[in-house]
Amino acid sequence: MEKTETAKQVAQRWVSYRPSIKVVDVTVRDGGLMNNHRFSDDVVRGVYNACVGAGIDYMEIGYKTSKRLASAKEYGPWKFCDEADIRRIVGDNKTNLKLCVMADAERCDYQDDILPKQDSVIDMIRVATYIHQVPVALDMVKDAHAKGYETTVNLMAASAVPENELREALDMLCDSEIEALYLVDSFGAFYSEQVHYLVDLYLKAAQPRGKTLGMHAHNNQQLAYANTIEAAIKGADMLDSSMAGLGRGAGNCQTELLLGFLHNPKYRLRPVLQCIQDLIEPMRAELRWGFDIPYMITGVLNEHPRAAMAFNAGNDRGNLVKFFDSLVEKE
Amino acid sequence: MEKTETAKQVAQRWVSYRPSIKVVDVTVRDGGLMNNHRFSDDVVRGVYNACVGAGIDYMEIGYKTSKRLASAKEYGPWKFCDEADIRRIVGDNKTNLKLCVMADAERCDYQDDILPKQDSVIDMIRVATYIHQVPVALDMVKDAHAKGYETTVNLMAASAVPENELREALDMLCDSEIEALYLVDSFGAFYSEQVHYLVDLYLKAAQPRGKTLGMHAHNNQQLAYANTIEAAIKGADMLDSSMAGLGRGAGNCQTELLLGFLHNPKYRLRPVLQCIQDLIEPMRAELRWGFDIPYMITGVLNEHPRAAMAFNAGNDRGNLVKFFDSLVEKE
Repeated sequence: MEKTETAKQVAQRWVSYRPSIKVVDVTVRDGGLMNNHRFSDDVVRGVYNACVGAGIDYMEIGYKTSKRLASAKEYGPWKFCDEADIRRIVGDNKTNLKLCVMADAERCDYQDDILPKQDSVIDMIRVATYIHQVPVALDMVKDAHAKGYETTVNLMAASAVPENELREALDMLCDSEIEALYLVDSFGAFYSEQVHYLVDLYLKAAQPRGKTLGMHAHNNQQLAYANTIEAAIKGADMLDSSMAGLGRGAGNCQTELLLGFLHNPKYRLRPVLQCIQDLIEPMRAELRWGFDIPYMITGVLNEHPRAAMAFNAGNDRGNLVKFFDSLVEKE
Repeated sequence: MEKTETAKQVAQRWVSYRPSIKVVDVTVRDGGLMNNHRFSDDVVRGVYNACVGAGIDYMEIGYKTSKRLASAKEYGPWKFCDEADIRRIVGDNKTNLKLCVMADAERCDYQDDILPKQDSVIDMIRVATYIHQVPVALDMVKDAHAKGYETTVNLMAASAVPENELREALDMLCDSEIEALYLVDSFGAFYSEQVHYLVDLYLKAAQPRGKTLGMHAHNNQQLAYANTIEAAIKGADMLDSSMAGLGRGAGNCQTELLLGFLHNPKYRLRPVLQCIQDLIEPMRAELRWGFDIPYMITGVLNEHPRAAMAFNAGNDRGNLVKFFDSLVEKE
């Protein structure tokens, strides 16, 4: 537990900062869930340039989804992240920004679609898994690690996993080749006390094996940023965020808020603000992500936000009482 | 410190709740700062009915401002809260909801304008004071207490008060007749660790004198709700919130979020949602409160949000980089 103590002490030196913390920008990857991954090259390039300019550590550029499961007619390029598409934006990426993609367990032809590292500009593969897919996820990690990538596992919907299964999964995942294990609040259901409790639980598995802990929060209860801070204070060292919070439903922890909190002089806010102003906010009217009371209601109920997303996409948007009644009745 | 320990233990029983916590709805009072207190009677009555229906403990209906300092031509009735205006909305208020008003130090003719309690439907006077006005505030508390009211002191801009002055003020205020002392984050500048530190500091003065601690947060860094939770967990028992967060600039802790957290069965969310849907959200396009990046920037800098409010009211709204540059240059 020595590392936790130290991290906490450093976090409590208020005007200082913790150099080990890394920021992972998920704007294009998580935001793609709001537009079927159909961002223009200008937007993706703008986010990339902003990440480089802001000193952000990683940028997640999209998913590696099997083309058997999703068609290129229905989805934009960031659903698949072909090497040529990525290189069209970043060239050989001769910058300090590392690139990563997300590969969903059971939705990725990883043996074929993930190239050997020497043939790819991608630096890290993030395997997203539900609790019942952990064995598949472990095979994906093994494959990506053998090909030369950094790897993480993002265990989704942690708020809905029974604790005995969770403990078992954490041990299995931390015995694998991963660099980092993620606490993921898919439903935006956590309060600070639950974040504290779970970060401690995850660190108990991660620290003895030398694994980093990550945090991925959603803003259903307007706590994505607050909970990301809490995870950092307790020892999480990889923090996911997105510009203007762009992401599925209520969105993510906002990069612009997080950089203000971190106090690390390597980060610069201005390029993020410029990107938000020029490229992200202009998409809000169409994509309509961000905190909204229907997401709050699914968050309180510890449910997937899909009911709220469907409601907000329909004609009853704004009829909060109707949505509330429909969920309460369903209970 | 026994009370704190107990409060904390109770808060940590996660599916339970703390019966001593009271919610103070500040929608009309703090929201009035966005429209010169010109709410229609329908809105004020709607908020009142929603508070009654939701089981909220107090509703703050406006300010008691001296008519020498502000004219009834420029401001609506909730700047002054004449007894007749309040009674037009609430009658004799034969409900469990208590009513309160805010009286700013040096801006209220309290000797004359605050009636004896037996002539008023108001239950509580909340005295708002900056650190240099504490002696005036104490006289206002004495006056209101002698007239028969519950009283609180809301010490504003706590994030900008030197700690030695703060400690002195807390002792003076807690030696007075107040029922409750408020921690007020006027600039939306606090993170959780600062809330924890200050709540402990305030409780050290308040608890031995049997005073309740209150929390009033602003959403400049999208932490109003999160920080209100943190204050509650540490022992604050009076929590300010507003419907849809309506309040000055970035607004307040949202009542709808807070009720979800509190788990007290006496609170009901549905009347709040109905009021937000019917009366509050329809005002958003004109009043334009709520989290926005310029408020975040003043929050990070621990400044009054007035620069952000002026910017957002002007033609450059949305030009985040211009606002950022103007504040950085000013530094």
